[in-house]
Amino acid sequence: MPKLIHKYRDMNTEEIYQRQGFGRTTGIGQRCCLLMVDFVNSFVDPHQLGGPAIEDAVQATVPLLKAFRTWQLPVVHTRVVFEADGSDRNLFATRVNALQALTEHAAGSQIVTELAPIANEWVVRKQGASAFFNTALADWLHFHQVDTLVVTGCTTSGCVRATVVDAVQHNFRTVVVSDAVGDRAMEPHQANLFDMRQKYADIMTGDALLSHLHSLQGNSP
Amino acid sequence: MPKLIHKYRDMNTEEIYQRQGFGRTTGIGQRCCLLMVDFVNSFVDPHQLGGPAIEDAVQATVPLLKAFRTWQLPVVHTRVVFEADGSDRNLFATRVNALQALTEHAAGSQIVTELAPIANEWVVRKQGASAFFNTALADWLHFHQVDTLVVTGCTTSGCVRATVVDAVQHNFRTVVVSDAVGDRAMEPHQANLFDMRQKYADIMTGDALLSHLHSLQGNSP
Amino acid sequence: MPKLIHKYRDMNTEEIYQRQGFGRTTGIGQRCCLLMVDFVNSFVDPHQLGGPAIEDAVQATVPLLKAFRTWQLPVVHTRVVFEADGSDRNLFATRVNALQALTEHAAGSQIVTELAPIANEWVVRKQGASAFFNTALADWLHFHQVDTLVVTGCTTSGCVRATVVDAVQHNFRTVVVSDAVGDRAMEPHQANLFDMRQKYADIMTGDALLSHLHSLQGNSP
Amino acid sequence: MPKLIHKYRDMNTEEIYQRQGFGRTTGIGQRCCLLMVDFVNSFVDPHQLGGPAIEDAVQATVPLLKAFRTWQLPVVHTRVVFEADGSDRNLFATRVNALQALTEHAAGSQIVTELAPIANEWVVRKQGASAFFNTALADWLHFHQVDTLVVTGCTTSGCVRATVVDAVQHNFRTVVVSDAVGDRAMEPHQANLFDMRQKYADIMTGDALLSHLHSLQGNSP
Repeated sequence: MPKLIHKYRDMNTEEIYQRQGFGRTTGIGQRCCLLMVDFVNSFVDPHQLGGPAIEDAVQATVPLLKAFRTWQLPVVHTRVVFEADGSDRNLFATRVNALQALTEHAAGSQIVTELAPIANEWVVRKQGASAFFNTALADWLHFHQVDTLVVTGCTTSGCVRATVVDAVQHNFRTVVVSDAVGDRAMEPHQANLFDMRQKYADIMTGDALLSHLHSLQGNSP
Repeated sequence: MPKLIHKYRDMNTEEIYQRQGFGRTTGIGQRCCLLMVDFVNSFVDPHQLGGPAIEDAVQATVPLLKAFRTWQLPVVHTRVVFEADGSDRNLFATRVNALQALTEHAAGSQIVTELAPIANEWVVRKQGASAFFNTALADWLHFHQVDTLVVTGCTTSGCVRATVVDAVQHNFRTVVVSDAVGDRAMEPHQANLFDMRQKYADIMTGDALLSHLHSLQGNSP
Repeated sequence: MPKLIHKYRDMNTEEIYQRQGFGRTTGIGQRCCLLMVDFVNSFVDPHQLGGPAIEDAVQATVPLLKAFRTWQLPVVHTRVVFEADGSDRNLFATRVNALQALTEHAAGSQIVTELAPIANEWVVRKQGASAFFNTALADWLHFHQVDTLVVTGCTTSGCVRATVVDAVQHNFRTVVVSDAVGDRAMEPHQANLFDMRQKYADIMTGDALLSHLHSLQGNSP
Repeated sequence: MPKLIHKYRDMNTEEIYQRQGFGRTTGIGQRCCLLMVDFVNSFVDPHQLGGPAIEDAVQATVPLLKAFRTWQLPVVHTRVVFEADGSDRNLFATRVNALQALTEHAAGSQIVTELAPIANEWVVRKQGASAFFNTALADWLHFHQVDTLVVTGCTTSGCVRATVVDAVQHNFRTVVVSDAVGDRAMEPHQANLFDMRQKYADIMTGDALLSHLHSLQGNSP
């Protein structure tokens, strides 16, 4: 598409977005929930569906989870889980075939040890990209009076992005923790952080977020 | 995040996706619907919310729309429409402020002349990024026995991407017409075509799609 | 079904529900919204889709609306609205044919004069029975920090019932105002008040509700 | 409400509905799915959440299930399942407290022996009244090209009614099998069959349905 390329050529992307009013922040509201998207063994393993950077995102999530538990703020985990007999297979799992192996008891679909859920932490089973799609997540967050969603997990360009778009559509202020989301490759990771920052979410490092929340809570985790 | 960058450095993105089984196609099913996302004046105008390449996407959609009309296949348009008194404002319109000006009768929210809807073509009014979000689109497509969604519109990195993710989640085979989707800047356009091809949709040029549909229909538009 | 009738014969309905733990109340939370379901001309007119009792329900809603406006609590109206060209017809409107006449400007689909919306009161256009179905209502209520829905409107056995079931499923405490909901016939009205009371909603008269809210607000409407 | 009662007094319910155009049928389409709502031990047992008539509904479902299996038509079961630690409790389970005991492995939440699912029959886990609410059911039915839902289960006035309302809203032609749905008490059972027949679904006995489907299939189960 040479003509398209020509038209795009002289524009500076960041400038265009700024001129058109994108890139605003919505900030942090009254009550946060930590949502960890698909931090399961299969997505941490580069030989399955993961990438080496996802392990770093797991490590960056550890202190966040610790803080949310200390502050007794809501915590939600997600896992992709399909029935072993294929009875709930969908088009997404037909297209991304490896997802069908993520059954209830498969090793690949268990949440990584470092972030293993404890009693009273809800684990959402999902079969789509977004943690909200065909799940009770939006209603659950409402029931728990959450207005702000803190998102970590993987992959940045897949289930994290899809979840963040739905989060803002459901009217949750959304913070993506930049060093606590990971992907199987660098370019999609960065491109999706750009898109989310411009249109859907605030982007903060884990340290910056913890320090902000610390000041809100008025006590140390 | 120097450590992350290091880990991503030696990987070839395309190779990683191929090795993990991404990039499959789902093809075209029994009955297609043409969905034109947000081809309204405001998104075609670079001085409002658009970019010069979006005008090219409009032009590339013209022959598609003509063919779908000739073949009497379903056609759906979308517009962003908010109430003038702000009564249905949401968080997305708070973040992307300019959306609030897209009211029922505003010039900016009218579909461009070249693609103006005719009687019996449904125009979906939406307030989110995805054409499916809080609309009757999925149920309408079902009612009209559609199994394949052909997506054109703008922007590639915004409402098109959000719509395509929901389309596959709703089990519609999805084709993104690469020269009939446009964006306000080039990098997000290309990055999102990459993500959609790897995970959610088949990517075809308008010519390739028309020629494929022509062979299915067995008659010329 | 003589055998079925025999088995049901000796049971007292109210006793059965009580013994099994139904009929609890969930009470009124921190912030109420008044939802008026389909109080449009067509549903008030017994010669169209209404019944004479629905006019009484309109009158009983007048002081509620006045109070909510005085207290500046959220107020939402709903209307059934279909496109005049039939482009968004669905199976429900195929079955209940008269609904298709309720187009944007039809007299029958305008909200009754006594309850006409004022600026900043959101009017939800719907095409199904439930006010939540394929609309932004749940997310809007969340955005406005509503936890309790006060429901009036018509018909008790139709759109009110469908809306109330969805309200509790979306985790809103729900109050049905018994004298401010109406139906085209008495038996369905009473049968559905019974079902809603047992399973989904608290039932209160308008006077009882106003007096309760008055004590919460600490001032007179 | 003496005034209301007066206004309703002289009307014949059936006549009113007929005069206003209710009670139409939508018939059976190209491909049926059998949906069995909540036929679990707890709802068959009158000492838990059931009624004696529900056992009859189970028996009336047995030949339907046999026929659908023979014809290799889609079959879906539903169960109410909550997490044992209460992490996914919602307002509905707060109101109807006994639902919280229906955990994954509880005896009460297992499907009754006579209708036990076999491999490849999808079992929907639900936490609301409607089988569609926050589940993948609508999209699954679409994926399996279903246009007609045959509903059996319990209770008529609860989860069956809620499911049927959503079914027509999702544009599925819906048949409620009158002797294969049951309730804990007779009046709500009959009142809800009336409402569903007038507004949402065709009502047929199991025998009539089987004989109709038999003629469509052209072979004997």
